[in-house]
Amino acid sequence: MARTSGPETRDRLIRAAEELFAAQGVHGAQLRDIVSRAGQANPSAVQYHFGSRAGLLDAVMAGRQARTESVLAPLLTAAPDETHALVGALVTAEASELRTDRGRRCLRISAQLSHESGVRARTPHPTLAGTGYWRLIERIADRLAADGLPEPLLLERLDLALTVVGAAMADRARQYLDGTEPLTGEGLFLADLVETTTALLRAAQPEQAHLPRKDPS
Amino acid sequence: MARTSGPETRDRLIRAAEELFAAQGVHGAQLRDIVSRAGQANPSAVQYHFGSRAGLLDAVMAGRQARTESVLAPLLTAAPDETHALVGALVTAEASELRTDRGRRCLRISAQLSHESGVRARTPHPTLAGTGYWRLIERIADRLAADGLPEPLLLERLDLALTVVGAAMADRARQYLDGTEPLTGEGLFLADLVETTTALLRAAQPEQAHLPRKDPS
Repeated sequence: MARTSGPETRDRLIRAAEELFAAQGVHGAQLRDIVSRAGQANPSAVQYHFGSRAGLLDAVMAGRQARTESVLAPLLTAAPDETHALVGALVTAEASELRTDRGRRCLRISAQLSHESGVRARTPHPTLAGTGYWRLIERIADRLAADGLPEPLLLERLDLALTVVGAAMADRARQYLDGTEPLTGEGLFLADLVETTTALLRAAQPEQAHLPRKDPS
Repeated sequence: MARTSGPETRDRLIRAAEELFAAQGVHGAQLRDIVSRAGQANPSAVQYHFGSRAGLLDAVMAGRQARTESVLAPLLTAAPDETHALVGALVTAEASELRTDRGRRCLRISAQLSHESGVRARTPHPTLAGTGYWRLIERIADRLAADGLPEPLLLERLDLALTVVGAAMADRARQYLDGTEPLTGEGLFLADLVETTTALLRAAQPEQAHLPRKDPS
């Protein structure tokens, strides 16, 4: 095998990680299998180039994020501060990753991480600080607060909404990667995901929200 | 180490699998680690007692299902054919698993399997055939169809609703297992999950649903 340059090795490792993290999970995939699939003989190639599994995962997600951010930027500028429009911008930006196998794999990976965004603590994961994605989340949060949703419910719902969008996109991506026939055309799928996610966020508050907490904790 | 009986070994393997499938994923956990945690010296103990990883996972889920089914049965009898009431029965039955560490681990496992229920094909996974859980899904489907939701959207939304409930329960279970302080009391959390899941299912149809499909497929 010909020797490869450092940047080329790095890119090969990232692409191999995308395949195995998507198929076997970000915790399940074995680093030695990623190294092997990247055509590297040195078993510590991940440590050398990325420091750790977490560093490799951050590198994978940085590439995915750069692509989505470029799609999201003009949508964020155009969208009014209205939940349906903001969710529409999110879904449209995420859907751009459905166009390539690489993006599809990344959608399958980021769905595994949707609870790590930092939404519940309203403090972005370090890789999300300063991004359009985080500004979008903040704008939805502000809109829901203005609509009268109390902060704890608002944060739990936002976390759930990101999980829903992530899971729906990852499942669609899996169908495309596997060659499974989807139940709906992509336009209808995306439009319905905007409707259902918006409805989830804007659902009526439960009656308990107006009562003191009953549980002893 | 004392020798153990076959049924005792089987139970130890199931409990070890619950811990590792919950923490490391149903595909990520190594069978040799499960065998070791169960205190078994024979590395092929899983093959001997369950045939395969899938057989072991089915055994884990059979126990979880038996517990939830007993809670669900009277709720199903009492619930009217109305989406909010049926979702309430689902959430209440699932929430019974939040009471024990064992149930919490099983909620973390079943969330990983929520797309394998068979809802999209309207054909239950073999382990769900004839269960109250599947009858509940069918009753929600019938209600949504009566409300005028076309079959493909209905099935995609039902699959998404099961994912939402599974992901929310698994996340709550993780917080309890980790000792993380939740944002909301459990009563409010469950009541809001019923509201948001019902709203997702009953969301307005996107305008595209009334148009011929535009995509070429």
